[in-house]
Amino acid sequence: MKKVVLAYSGGLDTSFCLKYLQQQGYEVHTILVNTGGFSNDELSAIEKRACELGSKAHVNADIVDKYYEKAIKFLVFGNVLKNNTYPLSVSAERVFQAIEAIQYAKTIGASAIAHGSTGAGNDQIRFDLIFRTIAPEIEIITPIRDLKLSRQAEVEWLQKEGVEYSWEKAQYSINKGIWGTSVGGKETLTSNLPLPEEAFPSQIKETEPTKVTLHFEKGELVGIDDQFSKPTDNIVKLEESASAYGIGRDIHVGDTIIGIKGRVGFEAAAPLVIIKAHHLLEKHVLTKWQQYWKEQLGNWYGMLFHEGQYLDPVMRNIETFLADTQLNVTGKVAVTLRPYHFSLDGIESQHDLMNTQFGQYGEMNNAWTAEDAKGFIKILGNSQAIYSQVNSEQYV
Amino acid sequence: MKKVVLAYSGGLDTSFCLKYLQQQGYEVHTILVNTGGFSNDELSAIEKRACELGSKAHVNADIVDKYYEKAIKFLVFGNVLKNNTYPLSVSAERVFQAIEAIQYAKTIGASAIAHGSTGAGNDQIRFDLIFRTIAPEIEIITPIRDLKLSRQAEVEWLQKEGVEYSWEKAQYSINKGIWGTSVGGKETLTSNLPLPEEAFPSQIKETEPTKVTLHFEKGELVGIDDQFSKPTDNIVKLEESASAYGIGRDIHVGDTIIGIKGRVGFEAAAPLVIIKAHHLLEKHVLTKWQQYWKEQLGNWYGMLFHEGQYLDPVMRNIETFLADTQLNVTGKVAVTLRPYHFSLDGIESQHDLMNTQFGQYGEMNNAWTAEDAKGFIKILGNSQAIYSQVNSEQYV
Amino acid sequence: MKKVVLAYSGGLDTSFCLKYLQQQGYEVHTILVNTGGFSNDELSAIEKRACELGSKAHVNADIVDKYYEKAIKFLVFGNVLKNNTYPLSVSAERVFQAIEAIQYAKTIGASAIAHGSTGAGNDQIRFDLIFRTIAPEIEIITPIRDLKLSRQAEVEWLQKEGVEYSWEKAQYSINKGIWGTSVGGKETLTSNLPLPEEAFPSQIKETEPTKVTLHFEKGELVGIDDQFSKPTDNIVKLEESASAYGIGRDIHVGDTIIGIKGRVGFEAAAPLVIIKAHHLLEKHVLTKWQQYWKEQLGNWYGMLFHEGQYLDPVMRNIETFLADTQLNVTGKVAVTLRPYHFSLDGIESQHDLMNTQFGQYGEMNNAWTAEDAKGFIKILGNSQAIYSQVNSEQYV
Amino acid sequence: MKKVVLAYSGGLDTSFCLKYLQQQGYEVHTILVNTGGFSNDELSAIEKRACELGSKAHVNADIVDKYYEKAIKFLVFGNVLKNNTYPLSVSAERVFQAIEAIQYAKTIGASAIAHGSTGAGNDQIRFDLIFRTIAPEIEIITPIRDLKLSRQAEVEWLQKEGVEYSWEKAQYSINKGIWGTSVGGKETLTSNLPLPEEAFPSQIKETEPTKVTLHFEKGELVGIDDQFSKPTDNIVKLEESASAYGIGRDIHVGDTIIGIKGRVGFEAAAPLVIIKAHHLLEKHVLTKWQQYWKEQLGNWYGMLFHEGQYLDPVMRNIETFLADTQLNVTGKVAVTLRPYHFSLDGIESQHDLMNTQFGQYGEMNNAWTAEDAKGFIKILGNSQAIYSQVNSEQYV
Repeated sequence: MKKVVLAYSGGLDTSFCLKYLQQQGYEVHTILVNTGGFSNDELSAIEKRACELGSKAHVNADIVDKYYEKAIKFLVFGNVLKNNTYPLSVSAERVFQAIEAIQYAKTIGASAIAHGSTGAGNDQIRFDLIFRTIAPEIEIITPIRDLKLSRQAEVEWLQKEGVEYSWEKAQYSINKGIWGTSVGGKETLTSNLPLPEEAFPSQIKETEPTKVTLHFEKGELVGIDDQFSKPTDNIVKLEESASAYGIGRDIHVGDTIIGIKGRVGFEAAAPLVIIKAHHLLEKHVLTKWQQYWKEQLGNWYGMLFHEGQYLDPVMRNIETFLADTQLNVTGKVAVTLRPYHFSLDGIESQHDLMNTQFGQYGEMNNAWTAEDAKGFIKILGNSQAIYSQVNSEQYV
Repeated sequence: MKKVVLAYSGGLDTSFCLKYLQQQGYEVHTILVNTGGFSNDELSAIEKRACELGSKAHVNADIVDKYYEKAIKFLVFGNVLKNNTYPLSVSAERVFQAIEAIQYAKTIGASAIAHGSTGAGNDQIRFDLIFRTIAPEIEIITPIRDLKLSRQAEVEWLQKEGVEYSWEKAQYSINKGIWGTSVGGKETLTSNLPLPEEAFPSQIKETEPTKVTLHFEKGELVGIDDQFSKPTDNIVKLEESASAYGIGRDIHVGDTIIGIKGRVGFEAAAPLVIIKAHHLLEKHVLTKWQQYWKEQLGNWYGMLFHEGQYLDPVMRNIETFLADTQLNVTGKVAVTLRPYHFSLDGIESQHDLMNTQFGQYGEMNNAWTAEDAKGFIKILGNSQAIYSQVNSEQYV
Repeated sequence: MKKVVLAYSGGLDTSFCLKYLQQQGYEVHTILVNTGGFSNDELSAIEKRACELGSKAHVNADIVDKYYEKAIKFLVFGNVLKNNTYPLSVSAERVFQAIEAIQYAKTIGASAIAHGSTGAGNDQIRFDLIFRTIAPEIEIITPIRDLKLSRQAEVEWLQKEGVEYSWEKAQYSINKGIWGTSVGGKETLTSNLPLPEEAFPSQIKETEPTKVTLHFEKGELVGIDDQFSKPTDNIVKLEESASAYGIGRDIHVGDTIIGIKGRVGFEAAAPLVIIKAHHLLEKHVLTKWQQYWKEQLGNWYGMLFHEGQYLDPVMRNIETFLADTQLNVTGKVAVTLRPYHFSLDGIESQHDLMNTQFGQYGEMNNAWTAEDAKGFIKILGNSQAIYSQVNSEQYV
Repeated sequence: MKKVVLAYSGGLDTSFCLKYLQQQGYEVHTILVNTGGFSNDELSAIEKRACELGSKAHVNADIVDKYYEKAIKFLVFGNVLKNNTYPLSVSAERVFQAIEAIQYAKTIGASAIAHGSTGAGNDQIRFDLIFRTIAPEIEIITPIRDLKLSRQAEVEWLQKEGVEYSWEKAQYSINKGIWGTSVGGKETLTSNLPLPEEAFPSQIKETEPTKVTLHFEKGELVGIDDQFSKPTDNIVKLEESASAYGIGRDIHVGDTIIGIKGRVGFEAAAPLVIIKAHHLLEKHVLTKWQQYWKEQLGNWYGMLFHEGQYLDPVMRNIETFLADTQLNVTGKVAVTLRPYHFSLDGIESQHDLMNTQFGQYGEMNNAWTAEDAKGFIKILGNSQAIYSQVNSEQYV
């Protein structure tokens, strides 16, 4: 009997897969890889359902800290917002779910691995690329992609098989992880409609402004308001307070790996606040060209990550670069939270390049004279002046 | 008697220059180059003062439309936000004030040109670079930079000369133009303090959300809410409605041309809303690599512009590129304004690349089969798979 | 009877396709798209063979000048050498052969189009991408890719069909066009072996150095040694004289579109000499940042072109940019040809930015003083000096 | 009596400085920093002259290995050729001479440091930037830049002071280091003249082709022709054999830091052969995007290095990145040397990504089917096809 590992989430699609694969003669082992989106109660319920549906063995793998160490950390270092908007809430976690699942499959000697993605999205690519790279010898099975069944057809098939859960069709497909929650469906399938307030997982509970201070050490969020803890705890804590303001909601419009345009809503309060605060701190402690190249490589890192190319060795090279730039990214950032909005009030850092005796912008030049400035500008302008004279430019 | 053209703003520094240059034996011609920051009453008052202080002739030059055509238009095309934040509110206008002033100097046959910048900021560089490129034969005179007088010393000197205006020391140095208002001083000289509410020129008057629709044609803002007008009028109109929400306020932290860090507050409601709405429209109508290269060149354009390198011929090449990308950037964008915040609701465009029968992201693949998708992913993964096998990579 | 257009070259693979398609019941129309690689005699011979093999109608389309105007010109403007080596000799012409063939298919109302590429190379992708974009309604047929027949099997099948040409197996697969000739096979299938002298189409006939002068006007090669003619004629002429020295031979190692590494030899004397001479001229007449961005966009243009993405609209945007940069790229370049090698002796141009009274590098500074230089350096060093002091850097 | 350290080379300019500074009342300590350009005999002669001219103490500092470890190594990793031509032969060594000299000045407690550069070149900037960053408290003295004396005037002044060396005016200014020799003067001050054969330090002695094999380990040249030694020894050895063919000669045309164009000849046989061989090896063992980003960062590294910005912390970040990419750059490269020319014959490496069972370019696709290829191309073309249909593109 062939062993297959199924990446299982408890929903209709993967429940269908579980039953369907058994019927095809597989011994199905289910795994749920938790990147921070599931509570203990939810995990127990999913495990229970997996067993009821005939999973030979179910595993809940908690990879939150590993996911932080190998991914989120670098997304912060790189200030990664895809298309200037989206913190890769789903894309990054899919990659790590794929890695965990295929490694599990190798561990238990499975000959196949299955996922429940359709043929119209990015997730199938993230899963397949990782699987094929790490374990080319393991077969990939994708019932949903292959059969193209409607939701209704899946429910009916399951009923025929005696599975009688009530599969309430959620209006939106929600994916939650520590680095944000994506919200897709209905309006996001159009170009012109925004998501309604009620589509977002968090509802606005706070209206009065609050101040919060983020402590960074070498680019990592090590504390909030003088309480120090490990970064993943700080992210969860910040998400709680900032999401109560409806902060970090937006719609990502992007080019999918399959070449069509995609649109998806998301709520990612903590990621947005952390990335923007981290970026501000960097503006104070890094030089101009450090910032320039961090932006170049950070954006590229985000793009390749989003497109499932996480195992390209250039990703390791970029991570090394990004980590190396964080040497002095230590200090604190004051933030004010307001409904839908946060503002960055300022920073304090012993590495602050603004905090010097050199001169104050626009006010005082202590370290150079007017003559120095004139000489500087004269030579700085040589290239343009020569160009202008050689080509007899007329400026009108 | 040597003729000098003085870029005059009516404030203490340039009033000092006006009087001081006369005393040095110059025939002083004053010019105020209006980029949208002065009302007619203000312009009259400034002209009156210039004459009282002995200007041989004063000119108010209105370049708002020229400034739009030669600069703002491209800043929108390029979605230019310096350091992801600042729409170049002051930097761009300085360059155009410089061009106008030096051309005026050439027209009236002046042998010198003067400005009131200090030796510690970017403005001196923007002025000098333009002057030296366009008219290397005209001498540049900069009394404030050379003398390094304190404000108090300037007032006293003017009093000795019989000038008795009351120079109330504004707490903040404010620069207003059509593309935003900068606010510097006090808190912006620190790294940690935000500007207080009252430092911003516009105060919050609206609290209820409003919806507004922006119409773009080939990248330019041609209408608002079905009222069509020239872009500069639309900018002014949008600024009025959006600034009433306190939208578009922030602090720019950047690397100055002289190598120190600078921090400056700004309020630029219309620029922020326009750029973000324009950018969203582009996400729907441009291909992935069009967006990528626009971002590269747009950011670089913003950097060189900010640093006064506007006359480098690469700037013309980039403008040509940016304009060429706007062919299909036509459509409308719905925006919701809220206190401190705006959200982009969606777009409509006949060039929308999402609006097709090809497939819906994550839902349906009409234009290809599951087998096509598998083939795609297989070959897409070749490079990584080969790398992994050749180098016997272990993923743990 | 269904009409199919076959891109026909006269070789074994496409001759097999011609016969095979007829047998499948198609009315086969053959087209040879000449990008400069075929003599009139060769064209007549190919036409004759096509008719003998049953082509309903054969067309020889000469697109050399169109190919120059729409492709080569920009490859020169962009100094495009893929991986710093390869002038895209084959890649660019394939794209234009594809465009011509599919347009012909539309013109004659064909319902299908066929090419003879295998499933292991870049050419299939170039053909298919163009076909599918320009005419998605036309079916693509690829017998060689589908059947995976060996050469021997093709010959035998043809013999059975009564076709008795002698298909001498050339040791190398040669593709010739105006922009270079590629040479693949045998050694290029290894990583370590160079192509032998005799594999190259041109043999070395000249040993004494010659001098040649190239005249450029707005980036285009308008004359050689004071003889002015249209660029395509100049290319042919230069190829003749330079290939006699064995110039422009090399092996391109690159990442194919399908993710594997590929290696191919080529001989492209004129392209190499023209690109390097053009580049040198640009070093004299363009500013630093013009050169920088030309290199960025030129390389990207070459990459997308090579990968068959010629119809992405970003390509048109880049062409507009590149053309805009050529305004002053006018002048002449002296070149010395030697066996295997050429050297660039120097340039003359009225736009030469070196030819000024400003100063001579390292010798004389006429346009600034020692004090100016010191002021320049002092301020240029501010950023590093501040960084060093704030962070108490130790340099050991 | 104030101590000054003088970077001394034994030539006229720095000999003038040595005498002149003494006359101004300084205690002058001389240092010659050898980056591989001086033989032991030359070093002794220079030391003797320094003492005769009154140097309080002379030091010959050999930094060849340090220079390799901290600079050349990264120039190879980054395949750095400025403007696609110049291996930074002089620029890089100036920076390291400056660092050594200023550290020496700190060590002996000097209050001033002097160099002999003019005000018209890049070297003054490299020296000053390093000095001011590492020791802002030490005064910089530059007699040649300040006095702008002609060569003749210097000779006469020295004669008056009783110094009677015969200063034969070399026709060319030659700078030699381990990473190449620059040759400036006469023809290089024009745009159109090449350097004559005799201007180059090495004359052509070999005419018969030779084969040589370079062994790389993690990007470093560890052996030649099965003889293994430290990289600096290998460079010297390769320079000897390759320069006998006149390989690696060219003229660099570039934008100087002071904004004018500069032209300088050079001979750098070993650097050219090493960089090109290293680059070829990388084409076989690195992925496409590794190569892309290496090229981006390598070029930028070269530019900043050339412009004296070696101490910007981004340089350390880039070095970290470059080193990280060299993990698999191990293998050997076969090279053929010919008069003026070398060709790369091929490589062997256990990390060669071409050496696999996956498929042979253009020949065989073992790892995927024709259907896979079609699916790949179909989806790869989605974006262009959608764009074309939405915008009803006509391709003519």
